[in-house]
Amino acid sequence: MSTLRPATVRPVEEAEATGKVAEIFADIKQTKQIDFVPNMWRVLATNPLQLELVWNTLKPLMHPEAVGRTPALPPQTREIIALAVSATNGCRYCVNSHTTAVKKLGLSNEALGEVMAIVGLFNMTNKLADGYQIEPDVLPPLE
Amino acid sequence: MSTLRPATVRPVEEAEATGKVAEIFADIKQTKQIDFVPNMWRVLATNPLQLELVWNTLKPLMHPEAVGRTPALPPQTREIIALAVSATNGCRYCVNSHTTAVKKLGLSNEALGEVMAIVGLFNMTNKLADGYQIEPDVLPPLE
Amino acid sequence: MSTLRPATVRPVEEAEATGKVAEIFADIKQTKQIDFVPNMWRVLATNPLQLELVWNTLKPLMHPEAVGRTPALPPQTREIIALAVSATNGCRYCVNSHTTAVKKLGLSNEALGEVMAIVGLFNMTNKLADGYQIEPDVLPPLE
Amino acid sequence: MSTLRPATVRPVEEAEATGKVAEIFADIKQTKQIDFVPNMWRVLATNPLQLELVWNTLKPLMHPEAVGRTPALPPQTREIIALAVSATNGCRYCVNSHTTAVKKLGLSNEALGEVMAIVGLFNMTNKLADGYQIEPDVLPPLE
Amino acid sequence: MSTLRPATVRPVEEAEATGKVAEIFADIKQTKQIDFVPNMWRVLATNPLQLELVWNTLKPLMHPEAVGRTPALPPQTREIIALAVSATNGCRYCVNSHTTAVKKLGLSNEALGEVMAIVGLFNMTNKLADGYQIEPDVLPPLE
Amino acid sequence: MSTLRPATVRPVEEAEATGKVAEIFADIKQTKQIDFVPNMWRVLATNPLQLELVWNTLKPLMHPEAVGRTPALPPQTREIIALAVSATNGCRYCVNSHTTAVKKLGLSNEALGEVMAIVGLFNMTNKLADGYQIEPDVLPPLE
Repeated sequence: MSTLRPATVRPVEEAEATGKVAEIFADIKQTKQIDFVPNMWRVLATNPLQLELVWNTLKPLMHPEAVGRTPALPPQTREIIALAVSATNGCRYCVNSHTTAVKKLGLSNEALGEVMAIVGLFNMTNKLADGYQIEPDVLPPLE
Repeated sequence: MSTLRPATVRPVEEAEATGKVAEIFADIKQTKQIDFVPNMWRVLATNPLQLELVWNTLKPLMHPEAVGRTPALPPQTREIIALAVSATNGCRYCVNSHTTAVKKLGLSNEALGEVMAIVGLFNMTNKLADGYQIEPDVLPPLE
Repeated sequence: MSTLRPATVRPVEEAEATGKVAEIFADIKQTKQIDFVPNMWRVLATNPLQLELVWNTLKPLMHPEAVGRTPALPPQTREIIALAVSATNGCRYCVNSHTTAVKKLGLSNEALGEVMAIVGLFNMTNKLADGYQIEPDVLPPLE
Repeated sequence: MSTLRPATVRPVEEAEATGKVAEIFADIKQTKQIDFVPNMWRVLATNPLQLELVWNTLKPLMHPEAVGRTPALPPQTREIIALAVSATNGCRYCVNSHTTAVKKLGLSNEALGEVMAIVGLFNMTNKLADGYQIEPDVLPPLE
Repeated sequence: MSTLRPATVRPVEEAEATGKVAEIFADIKQTKQIDFVPNMWRVLATNPLQLELVWNTLKPLMHPEAVGRTPALPPQTREIIALAVSATNGCRYCVNSHTTAVKKLGLSNEALGEVMAIVGLFNMTNKLADGYQIEPDVLPPLE
Repeated sequence: MSTLRPATVRPVEEAEATGKVAEIFADIKQTKQIDFVPNMWRVLATNPLQLELVWNTLKPLMHPEAVGRTPALPPQTREIIALAVSATNGCRYCVNSHTTAVKKLGLSNEALGEVMAIVGLFNMTNKLADGYQIEPDVLPPLE
C-alpha cells in the first residue's frame, strides 16, 4: 500500500518459506507469541545462514525462558538496552520495533521519556569526554 | 605520572576552584558520595556554564533522590543504559566510568557479560536493518 | 495529512499543555520568535522533566541574549556546529531543522556547500586516522 | 620512545620521500607553515594516490588562500567544524590535531568550552530526535 | 510525484548546468555509463567546488580505468566496501545506491546476505571490544 | 608490563578455562591456526554464553571451511569488510586485529591504502548524503 520499498531486497513471504527457513519462521512466531513474521526476519531469510545465525544469537539472550536459561536481567531491562542502542545508532526499524516491545512490557510514555533523557544525556557526556580526550580516573583493581 | 595528557585542556584543580565551580564540585562529591572530583567535571569546569549545564542535567536524572524526585527506573538500570550508550559510542572514559559504577551497584562480571552481549547483538541487528533499509512493521496506533 | 507517524509517541498538543509544560512551550515560542511549538519539544513534553532539562540546556547556549549572557561564538557559527553534528550523526529531523535555521541566519546554498564539504572532508580524515590508528603528533604543553 | 605503535603501518619518513610524495610533503609544510610533516600525512603516504587525493581535497577547503579562492567561512569557523565533527566521531588523532589548530587561531579554553557544550547538546538532541523518530516540522519551500 | 523533498536544497537540473558543473555532469554520465545524473551529484553541484572535489576523489578510486590506473582491488570488492561503510553508518541514500551497484556487478541476494552478515558480525564485535575496552594483542613489528 | 588495563574485566587465562570455555578456546586456536587465545575471546569468556554466541556466529562466516560451507566471498574480501567496518567505527582493538589479518592474507601496505582511501571516501559521501538528506534515485524493481 506504501510507495516505500520494504527493503533493498524482496523479503521472503511466509508462504514461500521451506526447510530451515520455515522452521525458524515458526520458531520466531511461537517464541515471540506473535502471528506474523516481522520484516526483519523475512529479509534476513534471503540468506538462510544469516537468518539462522542472528536468530540463534537473539533467542537465548532475549527469550532465555525458551531455552531454559536463567537470565541476569529482567525482560524490560533487556528491551531498554535494545532501545538505548537503537536510539544511539538512529536505527529507524529498530527504534520502532523496540519501542513497541518496551510498551508491551508495560513501560509508560513518561518512563520512556526517562529512558530517552538518560540516552540523550550520555550521548552528550560521551561526546564531551571524547571531544576533550579525557583520561579515565584512577582505576580500581580488576576483579 | 603518566605520559598521556589528562585531556586537551588542563583540568581545573579542586584547590583552585572558586565561586560556582567550587559549589558544583562540592555538590558532585556530596551527591555521588565520593572524595574526589572526577576528571570529567574538572575538565568541564574550564567553562563554568558548561559545567553547570551538564551537572544540572545529570543530577536529577541519575541522582533523583538528591532532588526529591521519584524515578521511573531503578539505579542499576539507569547505569546500564549509560554503559550501553557508552559501549555503542566506543567512549573510553565513559566505558571505564560506567563499568565502575555498575559494578559498585552490584553487577557481577557475568551479568555485565549479559549486558554486553545484548549491546553487541543489537548493534548487529541495527546495522542489518539499516544495511537492508528494512521498513517498520505495521505500526500500532499511537497512545 | 501524512501517513508517516509523527513519532513513536503522540506529541503533546499545545492546547492540552498545562503547568510547567505550557510555560516552557510559551518560552520556546517567545525565545525563538516562532508561532508554533516544533515537534521536537512537543514529543519531549511527554515527560515534563525531559522537556525542562533539554530546554534549560539549549536556551542559554543557543539563545544567550535571552538569559543576558555574552556568547563566545556568533549565532551563525553556533548553528553551523549544530548542523555539522547533525550531518555527522545522520539525524533527519535535526538536519532539516538546523538547515532551516542556518538559512534563516543568512547562509546561502553555496556557503552551505562549504560547510558540508568541510563536514564530509573531516569525516573522511577521521576514519583514515582511526582506520590506521594514527598516534597524535607531539603535543604542545597544556595551558 | 613510546611503546605505542605510531599507526598500523610504518609512516613514511620525510627523508625517504621521493617524487610526488616529496612534493606533497613540501607543499603541506609550506601551506600549513610548519616545519614537520604530521603523522597523518606520513601514514597516508604509504599509498601515494591516497595522499594526493586527501591533500587535494583538504587544501582548497582549509587553505583557500593557497589556491586563490575566497572562502565563505572564516578560518576559525572552518576549524571549529573540523573539531565538532572529530568530537562527534570520537577520533583521538583528529581531536588533538584540531584542538591545537583552533587554539592557534585564538580560541580560548572558555570559548572551546562553548564549542564543546554545543557539540554535546546537539549530540543529545540528535539522539532524542532519532530515539523518538520525530518527523520534520512543516518544511519551507526549497529555494 | 513524491511528497518527500529531494534534499534540503534544490538539486541542480541537468538542463541548467553550465561551465564546470556541466562538464562534470557529462563526465559522470560517461564514466559511470548511465544516462542521468544521480541526485547526489545534482545536490553537490549547488557548490561547484564541492562537486569537483568529491568527483575528483571518487573517480580515480572507483573508476580507475577511466584514469588509466591499475587498481589493487577488483570492482566488486570496492563496491562491497562502499556498502559495508554505508550500512555501518546507516546512510539511506548510500545503502540504496551501493546495493544497486553491487547487484549490477553480479552479486546475488544470497551473497549480499553474506556481506551483510559479516557487516553485522563485526559491528557486534566492535562494540564488544569497545564496551570492554579490550587492549590489542601483542602486536607484530611494523613493516 | 603496560600500565594500561587489558580491559574493564580480567580476561580469563587459558590455564583456568574449564568446560565449554576450554573447548571453545581450543576450537579458536585450531580453527584460526594460532597458538594463543586473543584477548577478545578471553574477555568474552567472563560470560560463557556470550563467548559461545559470538564464536558460533563468527566461525561459520569467517572460517566457512571449518564447517564445510562454501562461502560467497573469498577470505581477503571478508577480512576487508571487517576492517572497513572497524575503521568506520573507530574500534582500536578491531582495527589492529583486522589489519594484522589482512596483511597475513597478503594485502600490501599500498593495497591497504586503497582500502582505507575507499573507506574514507564513502564516509565522506555518506555524511554529504545525510547532511543534505538526499532522496534515493529512482529505484529499480526488487528481485
